[in-house]
Amino acid sequence: MPASVPGPPEAKFARIAVVGSGALGIYFGVKLALSGADVRFLMRGDLAAVRKRGSLAVKENGGMAELRPVAAFGTPEEVGEVDLVLVTLKATANRELPRLLKPLLGPRTAILTLQNGIGPDEEIAGHFGPERVLGGLAFIAANRTGPGEVTCLHSPTIVLGEFGCPVAERTRALARQFEAAGVRMRLAESLLEARWRKLVWNIPFNGLSVAAGGVATDRICGDPLLAAEVRALMAEVQRAGAAFGFNIPDEFLRQQFDVTPPMGPYRPSTLVDYLEGREVEVEPIWGEPLRRARAAGVAMPRLSMLYALLKALNETRRQRAG
Amino acid sequence: MPASVPGPPEAKFARIAVVGSGALGIYFGVKLALSGADVRFLMRGDLAAVRKRGSLAVKENGGMAELRPVAAFGTPEEVGEVDLVLVTLKATANRELPRLLKPLLGPRTAILTLQNGIGPDEEIAGHFGPERVLGGLAFIAANRTGPGEVTCLHSPTIVLGEFGCPVAERTRALARQFEAAGVRMRLAESLLEARWRKLVWNIPFNGLSVAAGGVATDRICGDPLLAAEVRALMAEVQRAGAAFGFNIPDEFLRQQFDVTPPMGPYRPSTLVDYLEGREVEVEPIWGEPLRRARAAGVAMPRLSMLYALLKALNETRRQRAG
Repeated sequence: MPASVPGPPEAKFARIAVVGSGALGIYFGVKLALSGADVRFLMRGDLAAVRKRGSLAVKENGGMAELRPVAAFGTPEEVGEVDLVLVTLKATANRELPRLLKPLLGPRTAILTLQNGIGPDEEIAGHFGPERVLGGLAFIAANRTGPGEVTCLHSPTIVLGEFGCPVAERTRALARQFEAAGVRMRLAESLLEARWRKLVWNIPFNGLSVAAGGVATDRICGDPLLAAEVRALMAEVQRAGAAFGFNIPDEFLRQQFDVTPPMGPYRPSTLVDYLEGREVEVEPIWGEPLRRARAAGVAMPRLSMLYALLKALNETRRQRAG
Repeated sequence: MPASVPGPPEAKFARIAVVGSGALGIYFGVKLALSGADVRFLMRGDLAAVRKRGSLAVKENGGMAELRPVAAFGTPEEVGEVDLVLVTLKATANRELPRLLKPLLGPRTAILTLQNGIGPDEEIAGHFGPERVLGGLAFIAANRTGPGEVTCLHSPTIVLGEFGCPVAERTRALARQFEAAGVRMRLAESLLEARWRKLVWNIPFNGLSVAAGGVATDRICGDPLLAAEVRALMAEVQRAGAAFGFNIPDEFLRQQFDVTPPMGPYRPSTLVDYLEGREVEVEPIWGEPLRRARAAGVAMPRLSMLYALLKALNETRRQRAG
């Protein structure tokens, strides 16, 4: 269960590499750098623009935090060995992880993936060893609003856990470092349970926002039929979680629904990807949870339909673009 | 159950009005007219073009049948009283039926609706009396290929029945008249059962073709995930049918799937409507069957999801257009 983090700040992870400098990577990288860490950003598309600009910016709560100069690099070899790798790449690019992460790893380097869904922890553990891997669920509403610039609508919370084992001293140290950087943290004794809990929101809202033709969350909540599908999908996730021993109470489902209308016309990251012509992360959010539930004997008929449609929509768009 | 139609041809319905002169209306109207009936077409968008052209044409089996001159009218008052009204309007326009049909009806005029799904029979019966109403399921692959021109890919079969009662002498006479016009006919002792059987194909294929982003049936059959959803939706329709006392065997489901791949890249009428910016007939094919199944205590979770998405897609497009 998530619990508050006690203890004073301490910078155990002095050198940090951010792999995948989209909204999440820039947001957390800038926060950690401004609180004293040596943060190095691995960039692709935005590298030239960020170097020209000479800074990264985070707009939040009516103000702006700017990081200048920026340690921005185009290859992992230039970044070199670090104490912590923060993986904020889209999961659709995970086939590149071995090449991107290898040059960053010393003998004790930890890897924290903030990727959504089920599967990324195992994938990274498979490449580099389970003992390196932590996972975090970032509850954040932030969008990239320009090269090197992120606008954050709601200050985030990260739910942090270790891969395949309970919270350790390393987990607590990392949480304290994030808290010192101004990020609310919760610790999860079971990372996998935390991931299933996050799916209670992501499976319906991210999925329906795309499948219903590109609609924001206010439209979903305001449409009685779609809202009923949201609740039914949440109940499917709850039943699947129960099969894995995770107790996700009805109250949690209600609360995950009820926080959504006040967010207004929010566009989930999946919808932003879809509308901007990027590949959607279908497997970790819809495909892998469905397969695991099926293997555990739990039927998720609505998820099954939604997954098939999202995968086909991705494919249809790729064929038309290609 | 459908059964072959015995007996000689006979033209009981001398004067026929076709209401809704799209692909179906033109196809059957031309056939009936060329076999001797006085067929009057009520038209809207195509009226001027058809009057200028002076004919209607049906392309089929490598040949073309042409009806010249054409009795084409813009108002039901000009059409006047007939013996049979053939309703081939989209169900989305059914709110206009009272105005369109009233001038066509004498004391004994019969009304045959070839509209898809569940609900049209009851709607027409509610306006004009159940004793007038027959329903037909048109198994046909035909598209309108120009003003007044229809191309038919597979010669059709109509499954014909009476509303709310078994086949009567009137049904047989109408079937004989269609057969004399070259249309294969089957009689259904239960029109409602015939409608549920047709939904076995229409619910999955028409629905997924739109919801998966605008794909033809070959793409659906060739995608393992979508094909699995087709079969699961068919099984939902089968279970709902059973709750109403209709036995739809597994073999029928398999056969409805297996006839589809040989059709090639076929675009169901719903997909054509969607791609051409017309409103999709969401209620009779998805909404009304779902509500009736729910009232009978049968859960159809995949249909529920598909219905919510199709309705939202319709709505999203209308908002963007308007």
